[in-house]
Amino acid sequence: MRIALAEKKLDFEQRIEKVWERRTEFLALNPAGDVPVLVEADGTTLANSQVICEYLEEVYPEINLLGFDPAQRAETRRLVSWFDVKFNREVTDNLVGEKLMKRFLKLGEPHGPSIRAGHANIHYHLDYIGFLTEKRRWLAGENFSLADVAAASHLSAIDYIGDVPWDEHQAAREWYARVKSRPSFQPLLEDRIPGFTPVGHYENVDF
Amino acid sequence: MRIALAEKKLDFEQRIEKVWERRTEFLALNPAGDVPVLVEADGTTLANSQVICEYLEEVYPEINLLGFDPAQRAETRRLVSWFDVKFNREVTDNLVGEKLMKRFLKLGEPHGPSIRAGHANIHYHLDYIGFLTEKRRWLAGENFSLADVAAASHLSAIDYIGDVPWDEHQAAREWYARVKSRPSFQPLLEDRIPGFTPVGHYENVDF
Repeated sequence: MRIALAEKKLDFEQRIEKVWERRTEFLALNPAGDVPVLVEADGTTLANSQVICEYLEEVYPEINLLGFDPAQRAETRRLVSWFDVKFNREVTDNLVGEKLMKRFLKLGEPHGPSIRAGHANIHYHLDYIGFLTEKRRWLAGENFSLADVAAASHLSAIDYIGDVPWDEHQAAREWYARVKSRPSFQPLLEDRIPGFTPVGHYENVDF
Repeated sequence: MRIALAEKKLDFEQRIEKVWERRTEFLALNPAGDVPVLVEADGTTLANSQVICEYLEEVYPEINLLGFDPAQRAETRRLVSWFDVKFNREVTDNLVGEKLMKRFLKLGEPHGPSIRAGHANIHYHLDYIGFLTEKRRWLAGENFSLADVAAASHLSAIDYIGDVPWDEHQAAREWYARVKSRPSFQPLLEDRIPGFTPVGHYENVDF
């Protein structure tokens, strides 16, 4: 959401929500109890990153992150779902979920088979990024889109713990370096999780 | 998808895809390998139910299933995601996934704790449907929408195996009876899974 808002040049103030505390006031804003939630100046409240992104495209269309015709928008949405659902389940949950979030939230020991599955699965997704960017400038087509935002956000979390095998996937690395050099991406590279030091190249555009 | 297409009065031909066979020709249409996939007359191919629904709303806007302003569309999308992601994970996967799909696909024994979780979780979702329809004619507002389609589709699968506790949730039952009586819903009530007889009231609008 941060990257999408910055790309669209929309000002916003960030608030941290510890969703695991399940605060009553927060559940009133979003009964699903998860983040992100966006509150507009007029009080309009939106939850769910895909819902918020669709809303922002409709209300602030000046900078377009979705595409200029129905088929292009479908391709962007397909890839957003690919990374937010499929990649998240097959890779992010298995690596960041097991190694970082479980320890951070004191939920027990990392699950070895899940971590091995994450390490195995990430390769075909990086190959897929390479396949797409061989034919296109950005993941969904000629323009930078929400597909790049979704994919790069997931990869940045995995890169933080040093688990992206960039050496074996040059095309994906080249695409990620281009995303990483965008001003919208800088705040994310400055994030630090208490108790976890990121991998040495985390902030470097040349890595 | 069948209900949404019928509501929009769009003709279509259905094809069965046994996704677990992972046919090469099908993976070429949709690399994610899942259903639904929509192929337009001109060859345009779309995958993922939410992506297809957004596309249909854009290209065939005559009958609107999403809403007439950005906030209304956000509310519809929020609830579609609620049922397709949250309800699916907390209820459908635990009941239909364990009891029906595992046996149908010969994937092993049903997992007792998952089934118990599904039976426990369904109550708060049925309460939520009751809460929404107390304030609104349909789930997302005054008009029948994709939110009703998503919720009723999940519930119909669970109702097939007799696992919806309708007696304890009158408001949800009244809403579901109204969905069930729509012509778009009839083909779904005629579905039969080989080897599984549906619960006695499955087809009845009065149940």
